[in-house]
Amino acid sequence: MNGPLQPVQALRLRAGDRAAHDDRVIVEAPIALLYNGESFAVMMATPESLEDFALGFALGEGIVGDASEFRLVDVVRHDEGIALHAAIPQVRFDALAERRRGMEGRSGCGLCGVESLQAALRPVPRVTSSTRVDVGAIRAKLDALAAQQPLNALSGGVHAAGFAHDGGLLVREDVGRHNALDKLIGAMARNAIAPDSGFVVITSRASYEIVHKAATAGIGLVVAISAPTDLAIRTADTAGVTLAAFARGDSLNVYAHPERIVAGS
Amino acid sequence: MNGPLQPVQALRLRAGDRAAHDDRVIVEAPIALLYNGESFAVMMATPESLEDFALGFALGEGIVGDASEFRLVDVVRHDEGIALHAAIPQVRFDALAERRRGMEGRSGCGLCGVESLQAALRPVPRVTSSTRVDVGAIRAKLDALAAQQPLNALSGGVHAAGFAHDGGLLVREDVGRHNALDKLIGAMARNAIAPDSGFVVITSRASYEIVHKAATAGIGLVVAISAPTDLAIRTADTAGVTLAAFARGDSLNVYAHPERIVAGS
Repeated sequence: MNGPLQPVQALRLRAGDRAAHDDRVIVEAPIALLYNGESFAVMMATPESLEDFALGFALGEGIVGDASEFRLVDVVRHDEGIALHAAIPQVRFDALAERRRGMEGRSGCGLCGVESLQAALRPVPRVTSSTRVDVGAIRAKLDALAAQQPLNALSGGVHAAGFAHDGGLLVREDVGRHNALDKLIGAMARNAIAPDSGFVVITSRASYEIVHKAATAGIGLVVAISAPTDLAIRTADTAGVTLAAFARGDSLNVYAHPERIVAGS
Repeated sequence: MNGPLQPVQALRLRAGDRAAHDDRVIVEAPIALLYNGESFAVMMATPESLEDFALGFALGEGIVGDASEFRLVDVVRHDEGIALHAAIPQVRFDALAERRRGMEGRSGCGLCGVESLQAALRPVPRVTSSTRVDVGAIRAKLDALAAQQPLNALSGGVHAAGFAHDGGLLVREDVGRHNALDKLIGAMARNAIAPDSGFVVITSRASYEIVHKAATAGIGLVVAISAPTDLAIRTADTAGVTLAAFARGDSLNVYAHPERIVAGS
């Protein structure tokens, strides 16, 4: 586990031929996220941009309110995977412990199904971003995103999330689409790129978690290449997030808060 | 939440035009999985084929050893989502509680990062399926899969997992690829289709969890349309699962145990 790509030997079958084929595949590893010494979650992710991932996960999940509350204290590589150890304020840690209890449900309460379901649908903050963008700019950034995916170009099957802003397009890649967005949110914070200074483009579907993470990080516009889900649309609606999807060729559909997308080339 | 699709109003932007567009999107809802009254997990999934999902999740995660150990006792629809209540033998329930403790990590042990990582990578059983299939048959079943995705045809962004066997192709769809495979595994058990009687075709990447679930359910051959991950390949290698990926057009790559794929048209 020394990088994001792993060389492998494959057998390529094509129209009756069988031939050995040197290939490279994306690395997927368990990455544990620990706060103040306690494990909160293990994500299957690509071990690259781990500092971005650690911070962005904490921001996008609302575990901390801003980057000043977060300190990555250790990155420990084990045989099984990687442990990211972070320090957060005690008040944030207490809130996290409470949240984890909600996720676990409780024995014999007769209501734990409901409690687990409620924990899965956490309240989403309202985004007040004044970002405005025209369709031509979205198109240009989607083209730029397609050209800024080195891992995907080498291995296939890798997601990318980009933040389009005046300074260009900041991109992070991962085997998982949520992780790619987490890394992006962390990279934005570490590079002092304000969430209301642009918009997110992502190579995947727009699911609930994508919209929830973006809103929690203060991002007002998400453009997905593939389909939205009903819950993503309702979450975007509630959060004041503009949600565009099926952004392909010269077409896109807007499912929530179209006011941030203005006429243009 | 009355079905797998939800009608929505979108704004379609295309080459300077803005027009209202009646669309349908896939439903994504929190679905809680409870065993003997305790919540184990909440998955974001499409509320269709829930009986298949409940049983298939338990089989693919190794929560029960076979369908005779599983009984779905209630499906409760809440405002927040759906709770699937199942009854399992006490010995299985005790093992599950132990596993959940491993996933949570422990306070102050200094090793909880490692414990969490170990819990994420559970041992995988060895599959001894004697399935043999030729490339032409794989090709035909991939074509059949493309034609048996009604939800995806209507909404886009939906994954499908199919089991190809002498009787045809059994397919289940879901917004999540893991859930689609869970539903398929459950549907196979409910229809008494033996896991060594054919192979899985799936519209997604081949990740660790896909291979792990297939192996746990006793399936010896997985064909994915998109890329494999390094951990999926290593898991397939260990489990004795044949893993083919990038199955597109007349080409596919085999990354583990190619002996189950034989020459043919």
